[in-house]
Amino acid sequence: MAETEASSDSAAGMTLDAVRDALVRQEDTIIFYLIERAKFPINSPTYDESRASILGFGGSLVQFIVKETEAAQAKAGRFQNPEEHPFFPDVTPPSLVPPYDYPLVLHRAADFINVNDQIWDMYFKELLPLLTEPGDDGNYASTASSDLNCLQAISRRIHYGNFVAEVKFRDAPQDYEPAIRAQDRDALMKLLTFEAVEEMVKKRVEKKAKIFSQEVTLNSTESKGKYKINPSMVSRLYGEWIMPLTKHVEVEYLLRRLD
Amino acid sequence: MAETEASSDSAAGMTLDAVRDALVRQEDTIIFYLIERAKFPINSPTYDESRASILGFGGSLVQFIVKETEAAQAKAGRFQNPEEHPFFPDVTPPSLVPPYDYPLVLHRAADFINVNDQIWDMYFKELLPLLTEPGDDGNYASTASSDLNCLQAISRRIHYGNFVAEVKFRDAPQDYEPAIRAQDRDALMKLLTFEAVEEMVKKRVEKKAKIFSQEVTLNSTESKGKYKINPSMVSRLYGEWIMPLTKHVEVEYLLRRLD
Repeated sequence: MAETEASSDSAAGMTLDAVRDALVRQEDTIIFYLIERAKFPINSPTYDESRASILGFGGSLVQFIVKETEAAQAKAGRFQNPEEHPFFPDVTPPSLVPPYDYPLVLHRAADFINVNDQIWDMYFKELLPLLTEPGDDGNYASTASSDLNCLQAISRRIHYGNFVAEVKFRDAPQDYEPAIRAQDRDALMKLLTFEAVEEMVKKRVEKKAKIFSQEVTLNSTESKGKYKINPSMVSRLYGEWIMPLTKHVEVEYLLRRLD
Repeated sequence: MAETEASSDSAAGMTLDAVRDALVRQEDTIIFYLIERAKFPINSPTYDESRASILGFGGSLVQFIVKETEAAQAKAGRFQNPEEHPFFPDVTPPSLVPPYDYPLVLHRAADFINVNDQIWDMYFKELLPLLTEPGDDGNYASTASSDLNCLQAISRRIHYGNFVAEVKFRDAPQDYEPAIRAQDRDALMKLLTFEAVEEMVKKRVEKKAKIFSQEVTLNSTESKGKYKINPSMVSRLYGEWIMPLTKHVEVEYLLRRLD
């Protein structure tokens, strides 16, 4: 059994270090897309569901763009990758491409976890007003595509909690099994929480936001403290929403890990 | 006439400074998307047209993703903005949204200019082999969406040549009119070429690529010379392809500017 697990670990390259590297790399992606979304003002007609009847879409313009783009990506096989989760799973068409042999890492517990509804609400209700300036420049379609980039990057990061949980479980099943058998969410959440690590992540993403959103000129090497997005907002995004939702995914996964 | 032009300038906010600021900001966008594309290996099945019959698409997977995504964006009004140009104009559906009142800046000359075929060839034949590592990780749909982000950012930058040409023409029509009347491409190209400026742009994008593609850690403030993309490749992209194609757009625009 130990041998089987070791070989499947190596097939998947899925060590705790590899998981951490992936999460660190995903921070850059999230920050790049936030900077690109902040290029546009809030552009509120993008989110106005009462325009639906005018437009002939079944919902707001952003819902239309997300559904249509996800549908094309789904046909091209995007959601065959266990890292990817659609925002509109009920209308996601099946893949038309031959299946790719993704490494089998996760327990089937992951199949039941999709927190994109919570991510959607957080993004539009909490984050977007902090990220954007008021205003309307008419670029609703580009704005919605930019939102989709942010949503998908944040969703991938949060659902990566499945991999985090799996790797942590494999490393020390004896630590998790009692809480799983007792279906004790609080105990699992405690086991998965490392405040010092979370503080470090918040500091790192704030530093990244400063570096990536500075105005780079040839003459000065120092940014003049003028950033395209607010670095402390990125720290807050991680502290209040991304890390808690990732741990929520981890707990949900572990609760089913012995089924 | 001068007064009309002045007021239309101010309505559009379209000064040479504003155009330059837009071009500088677009450098960041292009570099972010290149970094994101470089996260995936080349993933050549994304570009294999001979897979078309298997997949039931009319072309390669990237053609499918670009066409479908552009179609959704077109319905949502993306190409009403004179800064945006589709890669598949022959199959681009009309907008379903009420027209937005974009400032009228350009002469109708711009309506005849779309160099996306050249951008497509440059991107896939020249740039992508320099940008990506060999390999296949199965993420063809995400790869294709990432390509679309790069293509659209590069296309917007190059077609911004229309605005560059318009603003330069308005600033000094007497300089351009003789060459336009003579339909002298070489003379126009000479008038539009400032080697010192081009060298500065190449240096700046290389510096941006270094800053944005470095690995940021909490402990060291200096990058250890390890970049996610090759900074000199970005300089070459600008020097060999983006700036020449932008000037090509400028020349094409000016040739029709007195029609």
